[in-house]
This record gives sequence, C-alpha cells and structure tokens, in this order.
Amino acid sequence: MTAAREYVVLNQPFEMYRGGRLEDVTIAYESWGRLAPDRDNVLLLFTGLSPSAHAASSERDPSPGWWEFMIGPGKPIDTERFYVICINSLGSCFGSTGPASPNPATGEPYRIDFPRLSVEDIARAGREACRALGIEQVHTVAGASLGGMDVLAYAQLFPGTYRDLISISAGPHATPFAIGLRSLQREILRSDPAWQGGRYAEGEGPMQGMLLARKLGMMTYRSGEEWLERFGRERIEDPVPLDVDPFRAEFQIESYIDGNSRKFIGQFDANCYLYLSQAMDLFDVADHGTGTVASGLARIQARRALVAGVTTDWLFPIWQQRQIAEGLNAAGVEVDLHELSSLQGHDAFLVDRERFAPMVRDFLAGGERD
Amino acid sequence: MTAAREYVVLNQPFEMYRGGRLEDVTIAYESWGRLAPDRDNVLLLFTGLSPSAHAASSERDPSPGWWEFMIGPGKPIDTERFYVICINSLGSCFGSTGPASPNPATGEPYRIDFPRLSVEDIARAGREACRALGIEQVHTVAGASLGGMDVLAYAQLFPGTYRDLISISAGPHATPFAIGLRSLQREILRSDPAWQGGRYAEGEGPMQGMLLARKLGMMTYRSGEEWLERFGRERIEDPVPLDVDPFRAEFQIESYIDGNSRKFIGQFDANCYLYLSQAMDLFDVADHGTGTVASGLARIQARRALVAGVTTDWLFPIWQQRQIAEGLNAAGVEVDLHELSSLQGHDAFLVDRERFAPMVRDFLAGGERD
Repeated sequence: MTAAREYVVLNQPFEMYRGGRLEDVTIAYESWGRLAPDRDNVLLLFTGLSPSAHAASSERDPSPGWWEFMIGPGKPIDTERFYVICINSLGSCFGSTGPASPNPATGEPYRIDFPRLSVEDIARAGREACRALGIEQVHTVAGASLGGMDVLAYAQLFPGTYRDLISISAGPHATPFAIGLRSLQREILRSDPAWQGGRYAEGEGPMQGMLLARKLGMMTYRSGEEWLERFGRERIEDPVPLDVDPFRAEFQIESYIDGNSRKFIGQFDANCYLYLSQAMDLFDVADHGTGTVASGLARIQARRALVAGVTTDWLFPIWQQRQIAEGLNAAGVEVDLHELSSLQGHDAFLVDRERFAPMVRDFLAGGERD
Repeated sequence: MTAAREYVVLNQPFEMYRGGRLEDVTIAYESWGRLAPDRDNVLLLFTGLSPSAHAASSERDPSPGWWEFMIGPGKPIDTERFYVICINSLGSCFGSTGPASPNPATGEPYRIDFPRLSVEDIARAGREACRALGIEQVHTVAGASLGGMDVLAYAQLFPGTYRDLISISAGPHATPFAIGLRSLQREILRSDPAWQGGRYAEGEGPMQGMLLARKLGMMTYRSGEEWLERFGRERIEDPVPLDVDPFRAEFQIESYIDGNSRKFIGQFDANCYLYLSQAMDLFDVADHGTGTVASGLARIQARRALVAGVTTDWLFPIWQQRQIAEGLNAAGVEVDLHELSSLQGHDAFLVDRERFAPMVRDFLAGGERD
C-alpha cells in the first residue's frame, strides 16, 4: 500500500459482464494534477495486467511509478494541464476488489469463487469510479497492453462520455498465439501443487508456478533482438557447481530473466493473475458489433485517437495496430497511427522513452489546438 | 522399438567432449537403400531433439517416419541412389545410450549421473557408428534443427571425411532468446515434483512437467501466422463446465497444443530431454575456431553445402542461416542458401513438403552432375 492510493466504494452491486455480481466493490486509484473547474481535463488511465495504480510519483508517494517518464508536471501527460486518474483494475490485488479480496458473504477471500472477469468489467469499474468522484465526462481515455483493451472496451460501452483515446500495444482481441501463451502460463501456474485448486492460504501461494509463468511472460514481453544486443552468449561468472546442479544456469540471459521474474512474484496474487490473464483472452471488440472487428470499432465515437505499437511485439503484433486504426478511421475518428521500431517488444512503452514520450506529447498537444 | 532399428556397439570407451566417459556405447540407427560397392553413396542423417532414427518407412517397418516425404525410392533423398543412415542421437532414448540407459557400473539407469552431453558427442557417436559399419567416408552429412547443429559439429571435427553438407533450420549457436526458452522448458520440467531431482522410477517420470515443457516447445516450433490462419479465435465446441474448471480451455488453439503435446509425453524420457536440450544451448561453432563464428566455420572443408531456414523461425532465425552461408562461402564451400517463406516456423521442414522437397532434390541432383 502506498500513501498516494485512494479508494472509491461503489454504492451499487456490480453486475459482471459474463454473469455474477459483486457487492461493495472497491476501486483503488491514484491521481495527479487538479480537476479543472469545468471538469474537462480528466485523463483516465488503465494499466497493464500487473501494475498498481502507482503510475507516477507524487508528493504523497515519491517512489517512481510504472510510467514515471510519461506523467508529471511538464511531462508528455502533463499534470499541469490534465487531472490524471489511474485505476487499479477490478480483479487485481493492489487495492481494488479481486479474487484475493474478502467475499462479504463469507469473510474469506473470493479465490476462485470470484465471478468470471472481463475486460468490459475493468472498463466499467473505471467508469463507475469516475462517476463516484463526480466525473461524468473524460477528456482522454488511455492505456497500454491490457490497458489498451480497456480503452477500446470503454470506448465501445460508453460512447459520448469521452473525447479522445490512446491505445498503445493493444489489440481488438488476442491472437491464437497470444492465447496459447497465456493459456500455457495459466496452466503452469495451476500445475504448482501449492496452488491447491486456488484454495491456498494467504501468503502461501504457488511461488514456483508464478515464477515460471512470469518467466514465460518475460520471454514474450521483450524481444529476441534486444537480448541479442544486450546479452549475446555472455556467460554467468560464477555458476553453481555442476555436481550441485547439472542443469544450472550458464548464460547471462538466464539470470536476467530469473532476477526480473523474482521481483514480480510475492507481490502478485496467483488467482488475480489467472483472472486478469483469462480476461485478455476472452475480450473481443467484435462482440460489441455484428461479429467483426470493424463493426465493433464502428461503435466508437471518439474525436481523435492515438494508436501505437511496436514492430517487435509478438503479443499484439503491429498489424493489429493497423487494424484498430483502420476501424477507427472508418468510424470517423481522426487517427494518429504510430508503428514504432523499438527493440524492446511488447513492453517497449515502459522503457523506450525516446520513442513514446514525444509521440504522446504531440498527440495531446494536438488536442489542445482544437 | 521398431523392426527396422539396428544397433552398433562401440568397442572403445567413449570420451565425452566436456568430460567423463561412457563404456559400451550403443548407437541405434535405421538405414535405407544399398551401400555401393565403392562405398561412396552414404548420406548420414542426424535428427532433431525428439525423433528416433525412424526417418522413413521401409519393408521392415512400414509405419511412416518423421521425414517420410523426403526419403525413399525416387524421393528427394533417393534411396535408389543413396545409402541413407539415420542415427538416434547419443543421449536420446530410442535405442542409443543415454540418461535412461543402464549404467554398466551400477546396472541402474544413469539418470543425472550421465556426463554432460554436447552436440560434439552426438556428431562423434554418428561418426563412430559409421566406422563400426565399415564406412570411413560419407557423401553427404545432413540434418535439421539439432540435427543441423550436429552437421556443423561433424564438419568441424572430421574434415576430410565428408563431401557435401545439408544444414536446415539450425544455427552456429543458440541465440539468447532460444537459450531463455529452452532454459525455461528445463526449469518447468524440473519443477514437477515427480521429477524427483532426476531419480524418478522408470515409467513414473514427470508427465505434467514434460507436457508443459512440450507445450512451450510447440509455441516456438510453429508460427503465430500459421495459427492465425488455421485457428483464429475458433472456440472449442464442448468446453468443460465452468463450475468444474473456471480456467478451462476455451479456444481451438488450446486444444490443438494440448493434443499435440500429449502425443509426445510418455514416449520421451525426461532426463534425456534435459540433456539434449542443454546440449543445444552449449554448442557454439566458434569454440572450434578462434572464438568467432566465422573462424569456426572456416574449419569446414565441404565441397558443397545446402543451407536453408524459414523466415518465420524464431529458434533459428533466418539471419543465422545467412551467417552459416557466409562463413562457409568464405571457407571456399559452394553454398546454396535458401530463405524459405514457410508459414510453419521452425518445424516447417517436417511439414512443408512443397518448399523443402524440391530444394533438397535439386541440391542432391546438383552433386550428381559434378
């Protein structure tokens, strides 16, 4: 928990998109900047699968956020202009209601009794949180990865309540390759005996399963090109003796993936991970149209949209960015499409400041001129 | 075991490339065609990580082999011309000595007491098996994937004992991406409690770990493009009820990967898999030169070489095919380089008859004209 985190409790039961309902839904958020007197400067930000609402530092919480280079005074998402609200996804475990939260009916965590989670639910929880804060209209809805899917769902479900959109490294739905990967991550996690069919006690979750699932995630969040440049075939300096472990790590790339993945586990609840991962597979903009991506995107009534992705992204390939841009264009949205040549794959938006910062800055500045 | 399988027992202790020695090494092989009186028509074939020596059907074993379209009378590798010998890799579990074989010193399987396995050992075991059969010179050494690495190692270690080479979808060494993937497969397998540190009883190996490792393999053996075309977002017709499994498979791609991966497990020994997988990471043609790929390839004294790969291969990317071709060219080898646009990724050589059959046929016919 961080000092900057705030909470909204929704006063209506929350009907889930694919069935089931939640009582007493809490949505955690952080905010930066000041709401303008006419409330026309809200930038609503959704997150990827794993981050909290701590997208940037603030006076109350000076620790760096996950999009630190993007959000702040004078930064591309300029908090001297925008009132930025970042939402912790419904179903996550950083303050918002999710599988790790107590079920009011039992006092025990929901665990796998949590109803099936959809991207539509995450989007609507963001919408409801804004309304509870007295915000009916937002200037821009933004997000990357799962957050970008949230943006598309939001735009389909709530036409007339937003002006502009930013969708980064997302897709109108998951490809079969991305589904196969995430399905395998979920199976790896559930194969850890410590998962116990989802009934593990708090703090005794499937650590090894989470570690392996996260490692597989890392294989797809970055790119082979980046690793070739950074690591090549560099060896680990002091590997474990072979008589201790004949299959020890030998290469720098192995310890890089291991080290980065270990940072994640322990923080993130395994069941929350399963629900959020599955939501990404199930989402399809086509469901809100007549069965095609184009018909789904045609429901979106934005004025302008920034659609961006990177050429080394395997989870949301660059052709999906074109698909979103074409669909929005056909729907009359003024689209800025950016096909970025970042080396860092899907996660480039988190690290490639050089390409992402000016792009977002220019897009938002373009809106100011209208 | 198949009726066509034959065995050679090496009469010398086998000194392993990275230390250790094996006694009584057995190498399983199959052969097709007839050895010419002057013994100049041998095509020595190495396999990928998982197949047996049953590369093609024969009178003794009419079941289809793993390269059925390629090998036989009148086929691209024409058994009316060539005497084809396919070698089951040292370290594998289809008749050749490996971690699942009994250790003569104890009578128990070697398991993880098997010495560290190298691509160089597999290549030399193939060479020794040929010599035991009275074959000192081979016309062509061929292989794909790990088999292609075996070809490069063979060519480096035994100059003057071969004429032509065929290296398909291989590399001069593994990229960090490929290492990361295989390292993760090995870790997934070893995380299955049934692996028991490698000491599982015969028939009680880590089935779930093997299944998950194989699924991850499948994600990298084929390509996202192929799956997009074949499966898109097609659903499974009768999924498990949600109250039985809230994380059930929903999409055709999930059941395709599951079904294909289950065929593999049960057949393949887990420890053998670990050893062969690790050998692929450790191999580097540069080790046989002065530390660069080019210097390693410069040791190869072939007359002609076919070097081929596919543009959708992530494990051995197309630039590695160019790298091999350039190195061999610089060493004075006449190189046919083929960059194939198969949709099927790394495993295309097993299924894309249309592209691979004429290429191999033309290369071998070119050799005949010399």
